[in-house]
Amino acid sequence: MTPSAPRPDSTRAEAGLLAPGWTGSAAAAATGDAAFLSALLEAEAALTRAQAALGLVPEGAAEAVTRAADPARFDLRALAERARGGGNPVIPLAADLTAAVTEAAGEEYGACVHRGATSQDIMDTAAMLVAVRTLDLVLADLARTEAALARTAAAHRDTVLPGRTLTQHAVPTTFGLKAAGWRALVLDARDRVTRVRDALPVQLGGAAGTLAAFAAYGAEDPAALVAAYARELGLRAPLLPWHTLRTPVADLAGCLAFTAGALGKTAADVLTLCRTEIAELAEGSGGGSSAMPHKANPVRSTLIAAAARRAPQLAATLYASMAAEDERPAGAWHAEWEPLRDLLRLVGGAARDAAELAEGLRVDTGAMRAHLGLTHGLIVSERLSAELSGVLGRARARELLTELARRAYAEDRPLAGLLAEVPELRDTDLAGPTDPTRYTGCAGTLTDRALERR
Amino acid sequence: MTPSAPRPDSTRAEAGLLAPGWTGSAAAAATGDAAFLSALLEAEAALTRAQAALGLVPEGAAEAVTRAADPARFDLRALAERARGGGNPVIPLAADLTAAVTEAAGEEYGACVHRGATSQDIMDTAAMLVAVRTLDLVLADLARTEAALARTAAAHRDTVLPGRTLTQHAVPTTFGLKAAGWRALVLDARDRVTRVRDALPVQLGGAAGTLAAFAAYGAEDPAALVAAYARELGLRAPLLPWHTLRTPVADLAGCLAFTAGALGKTAADVLTLCRTEIAELAEGSGGGSSAMPHKANPVRSTLIAAAARRAPQLAATLYASMAAEDERPAGAWHAEWEPLRDLLRLVGGAARDAAELAEGLRVDTGAMRAHLGLTHGLIVSERLSAELSGVLGRARARELLTELARRAYAEDRPLAGLLAEVPELRDTDLAGPTDPTRYTGCAGTLTDRALERR
Amino acid sequence: MTPSAPRPDSTRAEAGLLAPGWTGSAAAAATGDAAFLSALLEAEAALTRAQAALGLVPEGAAEAVTRAADPARFDLRALAERARGGGNPVIPLAADLTAAVTEAAGEEYGACVHRGATSQDIMDTAAMLVAVRTLDLVLADLARTEAALARTAAAHRDTVLPGRTLTQHAVPTTFGLKAAGWRALVLDARDRVTRVRDALPVQLGGAAGTLAAFAAYGAEDPAALVAAYARELGLRAPLLPWHTLRTPVADLAGCLAFTAGALGKTAADVLTLCRTEIAELAEGSGGGSSAMPHKANPVRSTLIAAAARRAPQLAATLYASMAAEDERPAGAWHAEWEPLRDLLRLVGGAARDAAELAEGLRVDTGAMRAHLGLTHGLIVSERLSAELSGVLGRARARELLTELARRAYAEDRPLAGLLAEVPELRDTDLAGPTDPTRYTGCAGTLTDRALERR
Amino acid sequence: MTPSAPRPDSTRAEAGLLAPGWTGSAAAAATGDAAFLSALLEAEAALTRAQAALGLVPEGAAEAVTRAADPARFDLRALAERARGGGNPVIPLAADLTAAVTEAAGEEYGACVHRGATSQDIMDTAAMLVAVRTLDLVLADLARTEAALARTAAAHRDTVLPGRTLTQHAVPTTFGLKAAGWRALVLDARDRVTRVRDALPVQLGGAAGTLAAFAAYGAEDPAALVAAYARELGLRAPLLPWHTLRTPVADLAGCLAFTAGALGKTAADVLTLCRTEIAELAEGSGGGSSAMPHKANPVRSTLIAAAARRAPQLAATLYASMAAEDERPAGAWHAEWEPLRDLLRLVGGAARDAAELAEGLRVDTGAMRAHLGLTHGLIVSERLSAELSGVLGRARARELLTELARRAYAEDRPLAGLLAEVPELRDTDLAGPTDPTRYTGCAGTLTDRALERR
Repeated sequence: MTPSAPRPDSTRAEAGLLAPGWTGSAAAAATGDAAFLSALLEAEAALTRAQAALGLVPEGAAEAVTRAADPARFDLRALAERARGGGNPVIPLAADLTAAVTEAAGEEYGACVHRGATSQDIMDTAAMLVAVRTLDLVLADLARTEAALARTAAAHRDTVLPGRTLTQHAVPTTFGLKAAGWRALVLDARDRVTRVRDALPVQLGGAAGTLAAFAAYGAEDPAALVAAYARELGLRAPLLPWHTLRTPVADLAGCLAFTAGALGKTAADVLTLCRTEIAELAEGSGGGSSAMPHKANPVRSTLIAAAARRAPQLAATLYASMAAEDERPAGAWHAEWEPLRDLLRLVGGAARDAAELAEGLRVDTGAMRAHLGLTHGLIVSERLSAELSGVLGRARARELLTELARRAYAEDRPLAGLLAEVPELRDTDLAGPTDPTRYTGCAGTLTDRALERR
Repeated sequence: MTPSAPRPDSTRAEAGLLAPGWTGSAAAAATGDAAFLSALLEAEAALTRAQAALGLVPEGAAEAVTRAADPARFDLRALAERARGGGNPVIPLAADLTAAVTEAAGEEYGACVHRGATSQDIMDTAAMLVAVRTLDLVLADLARTEAALARTAAAHRDTVLPGRTLTQHAVPTTFGLKAAGWRALVLDARDRVTRVRDALPVQLGGAAGTLAAFAAYGAEDPAALVAAYARELGLRAPLLPWHTLRTPVADLAGCLAFTAGALGKTAADVLTLCRTEIAELAEGSGGGSSAMPHKANPVRSTLIAAAARRAPQLAATLYASMAAEDERPAGAWHAEWEPLRDLLRLVGGAARDAAELAEGLRVDTGAMRAHLGLTHGLIVSERLSAELSGVLGRARARELLTELARRAYAEDRPLAGLLAEVPELRDTDLAGPTDPTRYTGCAGTLTDRALERR
Repeated sequence: MTPSAPRPDSTRAEAGLLAPGWTGSAAAAATGDAAFLSALLEAEAALTRAQAALGLVPEGAAEAVTRAADPARFDLRALAERARGGGNPVIPLAADLTAAVTEAAGEEYGACVHRGATSQDIMDTAAMLVAVRTLDLVLADLARTEAALARTAAAHRDTVLPGRTLTQHAVPTTFGLKAAGWRALVLDARDRVTRVRDALPVQLGGAAGTLAAFAAYGAEDPAALVAAYARELGLRAPLLPWHTLRTPVADLAGCLAFTAGALGKTAADVLTLCRTEIAELAEGSGGGSSAMPHKANPVRSTLIAAAARRAPQLAATLYASMAAEDERPAGAWHAEWEPLRDLLRLVGGAARDAAELAEGLRVDTGAMRAHLGLTHGLIVSERLSAELSGVLGRARARELLTELARRAYAEDRPLAGLLAEVPELRDTDLAGPTDPTRYTGCAGTLTDRALERR
Repeated sequence: MTPSAPRPDSTRAEAGLLAPGWTGSAAAAATGDAAFLSALLEAEAALTRAQAALGLVPEGAAEAVTRAADPARFDLRALAERARGGGNPVIPLAADLTAAVTEAAGEEYGACVHRGATSQDIMDTAAMLVAVRTLDLVLADLARTEAALARTAAAHRDTVLPGRTLTQHAVPTTFGLKAAGWRALVLDARDRVTRVRDALPVQLGGAAGTLAAFAAYGAEDPAALVAAYARELGLRAPLLPWHTLRTPVADLAGCLAFTAGALGKTAADVLTLCRTEIAELAEGSGGGSSAMPHKANPVRSTLIAAAARRAPQLAATLYASMAAEDERPAGAWHAEWEPLRDLLRLVGGAARDAAELAEGLRVDTGAMRAHLGLTHGLIVSERLSAELSGVLGRARARELLTELARRAYAEDRPLAGLLAEVPELRDTDLAGPTDPTRYTGCAGTLTDRALERR
């Protein structure tokens, strides 16, 4: 039996059903089709206004285009489907906008719509507007996240727990240092996102990036036009049209993949530390399970982790699009649109989740302390090695420790007790060296220094 | 000046504005949120029916659930947003379905909804339903594509054009062989898609893949339950629950990345051969440009090429999710949902475009033939090398050809003319060896053999 | 102070210093530069022998070329550096081989070297030889792995441990079922590798894939030549030259990414289950740490996990190369060589590690059983839900369980004890329903069925 | 017949046989196993010297370790194979270095080797040393490249050629603007590489990143130790140990993927423009083909393009490793080593090729000019649209142009001639508007401005 065909009504709108990581977030709204439509129209209107500011079109045209460029008047779905003909949505959009202006204000003004521009001018500019707005949301959530992590790190400056390497207890560390490290990555992400955000430019080049049509329509100093256009939109004026010089998109790829990874580090640690057997951490509000009332799933971390798994490959597609032939490539540009949007909303959603995670994180310091004893005291063997070498010589120290480590596990006894029975160490005070909470090295001062960074 | 915030109404529905490659296609409908919602409900209803078939729940419950599982009654957007709490949409969906059944048919039947199942059982099963349906669409478009390419290859079995390697003319080939090669890749894709499609299984394992809850609710032979469930949906019954044994998803990744690449090969060739300077091919209906009436952009190829650039990285994310810990992973599973859907609709859209491309392709055999002369006849130098070695010896032949090649370019004369002036070759008939259309090797028989494959 | 320049002697040979995952493995030897050099020479010699078999060159030439094609006589490093000129190593290699044959056996036989072939014929054929040989090693290690996992699954058919989802205990499962699942993925990998391996073809097309030069040199039935060539090398004869129809490479990408992911699943589970706090598993011989004698790092799993992280992206590069323009692309082909080799040896190394891991795995059944109690008995709440609903009604059962779950944690008491105090349940036998080892559903029969698969 | 097994001697050294893109380059030497071995030893020696500078070990120890840390004394292959035991090469290396120091200078000094450090301290620091050195080579080649491109752009400021979009002629542009664009990307790459290079830090944290063992061995201010260590090596002192805070590696991924893409853009354009049918560009020294003397393959561009295809996925693997659990992850760290090295040498090789490409590029201005006529003059239709709208009104202008465009192709006549016959335009001077070389817009001033950037 073959599965039946999908129902006719199955073309209904997308709602983010498969995307709990970003659905319903501010980033989702800022990157949706409606936001892109709005940004495309803003770009069109800003271009006409910039031309009016330079006297290239009548002021009335700028007003008419701005008035007509109201997203509510455009049929999003029809535009999306008509985009197929020429391969991008600006072609039907510019046609509809021209028609709207013509109808409302006459053919003269209608002829001013999209004048001199190419589809890519509008498309790229809109993408930059969407990116700036989404990055601002990301930055706000990163700020919440780092503030919460700073509080956590300060509060747990001296909370000792096992340091773990390759899944095994190594030596003690502090939860303050761990949280300070998470925060350091968030700040690194913030710095990278901010740098990229502040450099995002408008796109304006005309058909092949020479701005020729603007000159044909009368612009004497097209550079002034680019500057005016950028001013209208609050973006940067680029040195060159960047139709196939994709620095802004590649930079977005880099800072977004970085941010996903930075948040993914925290998520990876939380997922480990809230395992049933470890339970040193718990999310503020774990996701429930209908059938199993005891389960409090680390859902925020899970969704961040999922974003961190996807972002690098999306960024790879964007980096690959840098190798774009000619003045507009046949595919490399088109391959950017969805992955860029996906990255923006994935990271936007992950930042939202990270803020909630950081603000709600519950720490079980008792569990942390208890786990320091799981290796029968061997978690401080590194230190004992150093200490005992001073007393007994390196060779004898190593021999003794190896033997006692074996016995600690075999006899299920703490190392400290076994050491106390060693005659050669009768006069050595081992209370300090065997106490895991006194072997945290510079964790405290490292945490302090890290928290000084703003 | 900072860009203004997005408008409040910007959360309107997604319509595929950034996706001319798949928007409006049958694959878009088959993979949309509405199609997923429908598939999720089909999975729930099928599970209850399967339990009824085994006498585990009353027949009336199966009927009630099937009746209630009507996508039109569910609020897609609300489900999507509520999915955030537990990290997947099945949790709110099962709750709503239970409420609907309870309201319509009483609590006893309501209690039969989702009985014994875990969210992943429903989610994975729904994904397989969506996949099968989309692959069927893909297969239909691949069939159209290969049929058109078969006709093209047969029609141009003996149409000679330059073979090109590393961007340069090498030796002649035929357009028939080229088209037969494209078709061979399409058939390879078809075979891989078919094999994967026919093996896609339902998912049924319960909370941790042991089917324990089904037994707790009375199932004596849970294997029979899985079989009944599979029968209801027209999918395979798996040997084991595959919550973290992701063979079906990895296989989908592989066959979809393969198909994107297979179609991408044709697109890459068409994009090259329809360049203004080459113009041996043109798309049936090129996309226009408002400002430049002479442009007939190869839009279908462009969109296929864009899909081929994205698919490998999406597949990579799916392959990476195979390394999933435990009985359900915290992130690896969630990272699959959107990339799998993206791959399905990208490839679905590319197959649609490929069918149109193949059916509408225009071939300029005159241009092909004319280009054979662009290298002043050197396109047959390989053959002349062999021929003249027989006459003049290898060393002298090479020396002569090198000298004449230089002169052909310097004097802008065809090699054949220069050879005719060489005294040593006075008695050698060079008409054949210098004719590019007579140096196509086995292109014809290779084409014939390739077209025999069905 | 700037770091000083690297030392002049730093061009010394590569030894795999950064690659503990595959260094020293049979796969490393099978994929090294020496193995490729050998395969390139085998391809050249086989081609001449195939031509001799068809009477196209003298038997003596075949013998002379075969004799000269001894890797020990070729300067690997010089070939590698000379490859830069034309962009591939076959150009200098064919020149050197021609010189060697000429010197040893005269110019007539020298002229038979590489006759009619293009570099890609030799390069692709050599890659297929290397692939077949490495896949055979992979298959042998997969066989060892699945055999060991089959023993483990059978031995632990009834060993109960917590099933874990989203990092939290869900319901019980068995270690037998877990190991049977690992084995099922290994068998899936084996099936995919075998299918691909058995289809790998020789490459033979000449300059532009028409086999024209072979005809020019006298071959009447070039298909017979391809068949003879394939026979010499134990590879398949392809239907068409596949210079830009990259099915074999894409198929290798798919089956290798699959295998890495399949082994990565086992590694992910072992890494989780050997954490210090969990310690249900340990590797046979953990890697030591000089400073910390108690550490037994899960090194085999770590290296497999690292391979699983890299393979998907390497496969993505290979899938992307399918979209190759013309009869030989300028870049897409060249981009395949290193990633294909990397994939082969990464997976070869991972399979070696997986075999050792599976054969040496140590299972602590006591720890598994002890962890069943970590949720105060709530690990069977799903079952209790079903059982108590029957006794108390669904609503009351849920209310009661929610309350007792809260108390179990708050009072640190097992759920079974709390239930025993509930008056309504005085007459209900809860010994079975509260025993985690009796709530493993079909784990046993699923394991049995899975082990029947060969 | 099964292919025979690889020969026993096939484990011979790697020489870069599959990597014409980087083999033999300075970057190859700077990133080879020997360079890594050297860097590992430099890191060990610098650490002991830093400890000596702070009085933590005797000066003699620093001297002894520095003397012993001579790469020539270490067996690279043996180290590589012994790395397998613990999963990294520092474990056997530290053992061998300790033995060497002990033998040469006694046990007291031997005990100072690697004191307080963890393998990752040395491994990461060595990677940063290798990265800095390779980036310096990359920067030098980027400087050569941008200088050559600046000369080209200036020389061809006014060389007109067709602007191409979606493979079709659009409007004219200049080769100067194209080259200035290539250079702009190279400068963007330089800026990103420089920023990352200058921030690369040493790694020093000890077993779990707390620097505890250094304190145990007497360091009172471990921050001073980190600073001294950094000074010894000319790297930065980090604010925190970054064992699992992978900012430096992610930043390297980003700047290297960017650089590959930036160079890939130039390569993509050169590959297009040197096609046989276009031939506006040629590489300085094209790669030859033995069988086809006329072929001058664009080998430099081909190899750059291949690097640009691989770099994004390698970077993706590195970004993915940011999500690293604990104080040292089991796999994410190990997965970085080879991809980071691959990226460094791929980009190092591509930069070498780019410099040669840029310095040797041959420009055929005649071909460029000739191609302006390929569209029968329609390449200026955008301008004519604007001009004629002014004269005839927008509607009539469009109608006329559409008709004449059709006729120009149908009758194979230039548009200018057809326009001259239009009565309505009798008095309009169309010499300027129909001249493609006079429709380059702001190409000249854009080029000038771009060249002002240093």
